[in-house]
Amino acid sequence: MTAQTENAGNAGSTNKTEAFDAVDIIRIKRDKGVLSAEQIDWTIDAYTRGVIADEQMAALNMAILLNGMDRAEISRWTAAMIASGERMDFSGLRRPDGGVKATSDKHSTGGVGDKITLPLAPLVAVFGVAVPQLSGRGLGHTGGTLDKLESIPGWRAALSNDEMMAQLQGVGAVICAAGAGLAPADKKLYALRDVTGTVEAIPLIASSIMSKKIAEGTGSLVLDVKVGSGAFMKNEARARELAETMVALGKDAGVNTVALLTNMSTPLGLTAGNAIEVEESVEVLAGGGPDDVVELTVRLAEEMLACAGVHDADPRAALKDGRAMDVWNRMIEAQGGDPRAKLPAARESEVIYAPADGVLVELDALSVGVAAWRLGAGRARKEDAVQAGAGIRMHAKPGAVVRAGEPLMTLLTDTPEKFARAKESLEHAVVIAPEGSRPAQQLIIDRIA
Amino acid sequence: MTAQTENAGNAGSTNKTEAFDAVDIIRIKRDKGVLSAEQIDWTIDAYTRGVIADEQMAALNMAILLNGMDRAEISRWTAAMIASGERMDFSGLRRPDGGVKATSDKHSTGGVGDKITLPLAPLVAVFGVAVPQLSGRGLGHTGGTLDKLESIPGWRAALSNDEMMAQLQGVGAVICAAGAGLAPADKKLYALRDVTGTVEAIPLIASSIMSKKIAEGTGSLVLDVKVGSGAFMKNEARARELAETMVALGKDAGVNTVALLTNMSTPLGLTAGNAIEVEESVEVLAGGGPDDVVELTVRLAEEMLACAGVHDADPRAALKDGRAMDVWNRMIEAQGGDPRAKLPAARESEVIYAPADGVLVELDALSVGVAAWRLGAGRARKEDAVQAGAGIRMHAKPGAVVRAGEPLMTLLTDTPEKFARAKESLEHAVVIAPEGSRPAQQLIIDRIA
Repeated sequence: MTAQTENAGNAGSTNKTEAFDAVDIIRIKRDKGVLSAEQIDWTIDAYTRGVIADEQMAALNMAILLNGMDRAEISRWTAAMIASGERMDFSGLRRPDGGVKATSDKHSTGGVGDKITLPLAPLVAVFGVAVPQLSGRGLGHTGGTLDKLESIPGWRAALSNDEMMAQLQGVGAVICAAGAGLAPADKKLYALRDVTGTVEAIPLIASSIMSKKIAEGTGSLVLDVKVGSGAFMKNEARARELAETMVALGKDAGVNTVALLTNMSTPLGLTAGNAIEVEESVEVLAGGGPDDVVELTVRLAEEMLACAGVHDADPRAALKDGRAMDVWNRMIEAQGGDPRAKLPAARESEVIYAPADGVLVELDALSVGVAAWRLGAGRARKEDAVQAGAGIRMHAKPGAVVRAGEPLMTLLTDTPEKFARAKESLEHAVVIAPEGSRPAQQLIIDRIA
Repeated sequence: MTAQTENAGNAGSTNKTEAFDAVDIIRIKRDKGVLSAEQIDWTIDAYTRGVIADEQMAALNMAILLNGMDRAEISRWTAAMIASGERMDFSGLRRPDGGVKATSDKHSTGGVGDKITLPLAPLVAVFGVAVPQLSGRGLGHTGGTLDKLESIPGWRAALSNDEMMAQLQGVGAVICAAGAGLAPADKKLYALRDVTGTVEAIPLIASSIMSKKIAEGTGSLVLDVKVGSGAFMKNEARARELAETMVALGKDAGVNTVALLTNMSTPLGLTAGNAIEVEESVEVLAGGGPDDVVELTVRLAEEMLACAGVHDADPRAALKDGRAMDVWNRMIEAQGGDPRAKLPAARESEVIYAPADGVLVELDALSVGVAAWRLGAGRARKEDAVQAGAGIRMHAKPGAVVRAGEPLMTLLTDTPEKFARAKESLEHAVVIAPEGSRPAQQLIIDRIA
């Protein structure tokens, strides 16, 4: 029995009760072919049913990663993943005049210090557009929105669909955990990709994100696709390809979708952690906060409102005059949280000082993200807990003039044995150049519609 | 929790007790990198131990299929598979003069009507070179050597290592089942490749074949790499690449290896089945038989003998004068078989007639192989039984002049309901051209050393 003769046996062993055979599907993509709509529907359905085994899907994923999928294939793949589960429906939401309330959502591909969802959701709701923001917990060096909010005493992430609808109608914004019913095929597929080196396939990333967002039922969607050391996409060409693919998928599914390409070579704002990012978000909602966080929050709010048909809004004013803060307070209270409670603080801290005089031209996002994660702000495995108070406060951002011996960062943790590994990550994070130098960093790189 | 943030988590979740991480290995090959010797050794060992999961190996296999491996990688991959199990050692075999007896083996990549092993093993043994031929059962349209021999009443395929050594010393040739102890990693890997569309990767085919042949302990090896419709390799360029890869692997492992590229666009000989192929082999051993079977048997014997250092042999004479038949009879008897017993015959037959006058210029190997398989000569699943008497007798080969209404083939089976599907496979198998036409078929295409 040789490798060759065994193989030939496949020709006669197709399963009579299934529309297709997994090996045939794999071979098509392996040989750079195009899968039909029926083949894609069967693939996702059969994988969900366990008829396609994990090892078969892994081989198919690798073939997709290396050989790609065309727009029609990715669109159908996304639709099939949506069809694997439930779809939410917000058409029952009503405006004060009795019309259907528009909905808009934002998705970020993940970055260090990216707390934008926290001020953004209430800010958009100020203008009568409902924001159903289904979020997740973090894994690795970028934090999770739910982890941040869970540092608020009493706040709970899990809502029933009815509770979510009631809060969207009454408050206008909700940030909560995505239920397991949305795109279950994606959940299973993502877990597989994670252990098989196939996370990085753009068709699979795009369909994973968009299947959940489309199933969630939002009427419009703004994508914040991050580029740089702290982002998943390290280079602009790949980030642009991902953004274009997702915008096309949104369009194909009838969801008005826009993407911004934004810089993630340095952290957003002056904090990376959980409670400290909530504090910074509240500063922004109080009309203050770091310039970059305010700029990106306002720009994303404008994009979300425009996608939802609201063109005359002034989000910056709503941050200054307390309207966004009012929605925030009601949003946190609606989920059991006390927006005025003191947030948990880390028990231990250690300061990193500037090694020289000059201009801080680089503060590397990945290094800071990994350090915050090692301090306890993030988790290495899904079942790990995070420390609410852990993280990093930055005292200077690229462009700032610093003096040798000035504090650059404060590391925070409940478990001081973690300082050493965190500092290792920060060893090459900072670059100080002679005075007069300027960092070449632009926050918003491009807009793709 | 986005696809992006989850992925970053891998950076922190490496297993501290293992030398490498499966996802890192997959990514290297996915990104067209080269695996180190240590990485390859760990991969095969960890897969055998179950530390690398099937879905991870499937993704790696697809990356290997699409991105390739270099010679050093394939050689190490082969060595690691050999190291996963036992190695046989024939250095205890003695010539009459007390010296170590040379060993030589042949491997065919599989074809229709390929019974060459049956006359070849005893023929080579005539000249004092031992032939340890570990074989397999068939799956699909190409038959298995053991299936053919098992049509001989009493013959048994399973021998202990001691029995095998004794037979090699006493008779000089043995054809038996490969034990499970040889390259167990290959066994596990092949079963995975079979269901994941990754059988076709040349580095994996070559290392699969060669790991078993090298572990078997033969001193020299002749490969019969078949090309054409009835072969695994349909095109010559791929067959040549496979042959060159295997010859290089043999060289790297210190096994003197030569490959012939041979034509498999039409069946070998005039029979495709089990008992009927044994009958044809006995005809060859009696000095008769079809020209192509004799030619290939003699040529392969010459190559095997030359590889083993015997240059003055005349294999054709040993077929004519009964010396090869003597070894055959002793070889069959040593394994419990009766070489003079009547072989099982099929209960039913049906004849296919020539549709026109002319020259038979094509008799398609794949069509005949699939038809024989459907008649019961082969199996679709490993657990199926085969019919000893089933198969196809051909009455004309390409080049023959035929008259309309003359018998072209006789289909044989115990289960007449199988005739219809077998005939379907033969519908386009035969091409008859005007008299004077000549088929352009050369049996031995090239030699690669």
